Formats: sequence, structure tokens, C-alpha cells
Amino acid sequence: MSGLRIFVDFAPVPEVLDLLRQGTRGHELVFARTPVTSVLAKPEPDPQFPTMDVAFGQPDPLAIEGARRLKFIQVSSSGITRYDNAAFRALVASRQIAVCNSASVYSEACALHALSFILGQARNLPLALKTRTANGTDAWHALRAASTPLEGQTVLIVGYGAIGKRLAELLAPLHMKVVAYRRKRRGDEAIPVISAPELDRILANEADHIVNILPDSGETRHFFDTARFSAMKPGAIFYNIGRGTTVDQAALQNALRSGRLKAAWLDVTDPEPLPDSHALWAEPNCHITPHTAGGHTDEAGTLVRHFLRNLDRFVRGEPLVDRVM
Amino acid sequence: MSGLRIFVDFAPVPEVLDLLRQGTRGHELVFARTPVTSVLAKPEPDPQFPTMDVAFGQPDPLAIEGARRLKFIQVSSSGITRYDNAAFRALVASRQIAVCNSASVYSEACALHALSFILGQARNLPLALKTRTANGTDAWHALRAASTPLEGQTVLIVGYGAIGKRLAELLAPLHMKVVAYRRKRRGDEAIPVISAPELDRILANEADHIVNILPDSGETRHFFDTARFSAMKPGAIFYNIGRGTTVDQAALQNALRSGRLKAAWLDVTDPEPLPDSHALWAEPNCHITPHTAGGHTDEAGTLVRHFLRNLDRFVRGEPLVDRVM
Repeated sequence: MSGLRIFVDFAPVPEVLDLLRQGTRGHELVFARTPVTSVLAKPEPDPQFPTMDVAFGQPDPLAIEGARRLKFIQVSSSGITRYDNAAFRALVASRQIAVCNSASVYSEACALHALSFILGQARNLPLALKTRTANGTDAWHALRAASTPLEGQTVLIVGYGAIGKRLAELLAPLHMKVVAYRRKRRGDEAIPVISAPELDRILANEADHIVNILPDSGETRHFFDTARFSAMKPGAIFYNIGRGTTVDQAALQNALRSGRLKAAWLDVTDPEPLPDSHALWAEPNCHITPHTAGGHTDEAGTLVRHFLRNLDRFVRGEPLVDRVM
Repeated sequence: MSGLRIFVDFAPVPEVLDLLRQGTRGHELVFARTPVTSVLAKPEPDPQFPTMDVAFGQPDPLAIEGARRLKFIQVSSSGITRYDNAAFRALVASRQIAVCNSASVYSEACALHALSFILGQARNLPLALKTRTANGTDAWHALRAASTPLEGQTVLIVGYGAIGKRLAELLAPLHMKVVAYRRKRRGDEAIPVISAPELDRILANEADHIVNILPDSGETRHFFDTARFSAMKPGAIFYNIGRGTTVDQAALQNALRSGRLKAAWLDVTDPEPLPDSHALWAEPNCHITPHTAGGHTDEAGTLVRHFLRNLDRFVRGEPLVDRVM
């Protein structure tokens, strides 16, 4: 199978443009007239789209119905919010369009980011890197005492996919108890998986660390709300590397203010970035990175190589990596 | 064996004083007239010391010759700088005085601290936690690209004891190459150990991360000097959780300024804290915590329990934990 028309809706950085051109020789690369600059932005309609065989990026779900030749969509993010609904699933199923996300491009970096949050909190890095306190002073003893052993503590991973699996591996030598909550248990998980009825009990009695990796969807909106934060074990720590919309941020702030939560580490918020006036910026125990969890050196290269590997598999009729529909 | 006179040269916090009193029942606890407030401070001479059987804290090596009954010294730190010389070793050997350090009290926390440094650097936390950059901007792409995958990189642990061993365990799931340099290879190390002739080759060609855990001694003073920093692989990252005196700080600063080193993470400096005017504070890629690596919740309790366990072993004639002489 050659001569495929491949739509790319973002502007590849020069370093990877050659890679993309070389890897798609024999096919036709078509670039969007208005390139997408963020995976969270809404793509512009493009008159070239209806004749495409393959789409790489964040194609508009509404445009896909009109693209009658389309057979393979490589979404450039882990999150597939704009496609994750029954109508779209039915459309791609009936048209036999394969949809892949790029989870494997970002999962290692995301898991490392979550681990850096857990360690940064345990070792109290935000304060320790700021202070110049002297050996033997009360402030110094207090700072040392605020570093928390992790052994024996419980980590609850909410939303267990490629990132959660990798995070559990990274946590293994820490001798923590790691459990996961996921919508549908598959039975092949490497760690204990709990379901909805058990979630509140684990939150209330066991979870010292809650790592939220939930995607954005109708079902997950404000999954962490006032009731859930209020149910948490006092002194728990909340991490979010999923999506900002899954958290009621006012409820999170109350939980931090009341001391119910000891700290929060967020890589995602709603919106991003939070406006400068947002109250969470002023919470001393709220630590925010600007949606960089999946970032890594040569990310564009990793992403393009992931696409090219899948394109090759698609051409050969082999199973695709990170296929989600 | 009961009725031992036990000298304690620091003032235990109230929470552990009871623990110490209860655990030493049947013996006599004697507290220093001038308690030591830092393990790095020089202890004051104490007229009670010459009649002691056991010393717990940081007893003055010069006072030990006059303490004719002394048989067991429990040093309250991992570092044993003030005792680590031939004359003192000969003295305690001839007098059959057992000397233990408290490595096992601090090794877990120190290893976690080192891991938090490695992850904090890899995920670029100091900058990412400070910035409010928006999705899709050039600054945001640059920040994401500055996060470094760890897989396949080499970590060189310089000074391989209890902390290095634990750090190597914690690093295992990261798929990095971990090698250690130690003065005397023992043969029971879990990772490859290199000796002096190989050190400069590994520094020049392989080590992406150099974790310095060297203690302070005559031999280790300025172990990391201009020659060693200049020999390092360009872009290497230097971490110090050993002792500040093992590093020529002017040489370190030059290595950071020239770009030879990408970053430094220091838990120890010389002196501590560095004066506000010190140039390292102004280096943007130098991240300093104030000697908190060994700190942890209930540290005084962990330390007292370590002493009491060893006291019990001493009384029973059993092998002591963390015995160094």
C-alpha cells in the first residue's frame, strides 16, 4: 500500500521534518493550512482534509465523517478526550478507521514526573531548596522532621493505564503499598485493582498518596469533588498528572486550607495556565508544573518515530501500537 | 551486665527522652553539661566523661583516652570524620572499644534525597514549579524539551556504602547503568565497582550523573577539584549528599559557569550554610538543600531506638549494628 495521503495538522520542528519526509516516502504529506499549536486547542477546518487516508495530530472529530477515505488516525497525545464518546466510537467502528493515541510516547516521562512529585514532597524540596537555614537551629530540625519516610505508606493510582503501570514499577523498591482504581478491571494488572465501591474506603482509611491520572471525559469531570476530598485520610497528598477538569479546584483548595490535605502537586489545571489571580497559586502547599509531565528531550522525534512505526504497521496490515479504537 | 554509666552529649527532645530513660533502665544516664547542638560542632570537655562506660553522641576523641572504662561508643551520625584516623583506630583497637555509627538511621532518607535530586533534575522541577508558561508557547516547548529521559544514562556513585547500596536499589527500575567507586572493593557489592585508575575514564566518557557520597577525611578533601570537574563528560550533573569539604567549590562553580556541568544539586557545602554572598547561590543551575538529606519524621526516635538496640546487643555480647571500628 503506497501513495497514501497523510494529513499532518501541526508544524513539525525542523529537526523532525526530514525524519517525517523520509519516513513517508512513497506517500503524500499534506500539512494543515492552520497548524495546531496545542493538543488542547480546537483544530481549524481544512479544505484538504476530506481526501486524506491517514491523519496525524488532533483531527477534528466532526471533519472525520466527511473524510470518506480515512482509515488510520494517529492522535498525537495520550489524552483522547475529543474522540472518547459513543458517537465517535460508532463512526470509526462502522467505517473501520483505526484510532491510536500516543500513550507510549509520553508514559515514561509522565511516570517519572509523578515519581519526582512523590519524592519532591517526601523530601520537602520546595522549601528545602528555598531556605538557607543553619545546622542545629529549630527551623533546621523542623525541616528535617518534615521529610517523610515512604516505606509502608499507601499510594492509590486513580486511572490505571500505561502511565500507572510504569509508575507502579518505579515505586516497587520503595516498599510502599500500591493499589489502583480503574473503570474496568482487566485482570492482567500487576498490582491490586479496586473498583468504585472500595474507592471511598481506601481513600478514607489507607491512601497516603493519591495519584490522579484520569483522562478528561464526561464521566471524569470533577471526579475529585468536595465529597471525595472530605473523605480523604487526613494528611493525604494529592497529585494530578491526568487532566485538570477531573478536579473541582475550589474543593481542592478547601481541602488544602482546612489541612485535610497536606499538599497537592498538579501538572494539570483547569484552565491552563491558571490565571495569575487564581487562589491555588497562593496556597503554600500547592505545587504546580505547567503541563510538562509528558515532555522530554526530542519529544517531537519520539512522536514522529511512533507515527512512522505505526504507519509501517498499518501499511503491512500488522497490529498498531497504542490502538484505542 | 547492668549499672553501665551512659554518657549522652546531646539534649534529647521530650518525645524521646522517656524512650531513652525506659530503654536504659538498670543503667545510669548522664547528660553532658553543655549539650551538642550539631553533629558538626566540636563538643565541650565534660568533667563527668572519664568515668563513663558507654558514650552516645559525638564524644571528643581526645577525651576518650582519659575515659578508662569506656567500651562502646555510639556515634549519632553517619559521618565519623573526627574518629576516622589511624591514631584513633589504634586507640580503640588497643582498648577494645566498639565504635558504631548511625548509618542505618539515615541511609534510607539519604538515598531518597539523592533520588529526589535525580528526578528533580530530570523533570526540571525548579524551573517548572516557578514558571506559569502557557501550553504551546516556545517557552513551554523548551521547558518540556529540557526534561531528560533517564533510561540508558549512567549514574556513578562515588563512595559506596549503605546509602549508595540503597540508592542503587531505588534506581533499578529506571533502566540506568549504575556503577560505584569506592576506596576498597569488598567483592559483595550488588553493582559494578570501579577503582581509582578507571575513575577518570568513567567520568570522561560515561557518567551522566555523578552522585558524591564521600565522607569527610584527609583523603577526600577536594576529591572533586578542577582536574576532576574538567575531566567530566560535558553536560554531566553533579550531586553531593556526602560532605561539603570533598568538593573544591570554586572549581564546581567554574564547571557550572563554563557549561561543562549542566547542573549541581548539593545537600552539603563548606561551610554550612554558605554565606549569603557566596557565588554558588547565584548559579541558576545550582540547587542547594541545607543538609537535610538524612532528615526524617521522628528522626530522634529512630536514632534512640538504634542506640537502644545496640546497647541491648552490647550487654548481651552480640554483634553490633553499623559497627565501624
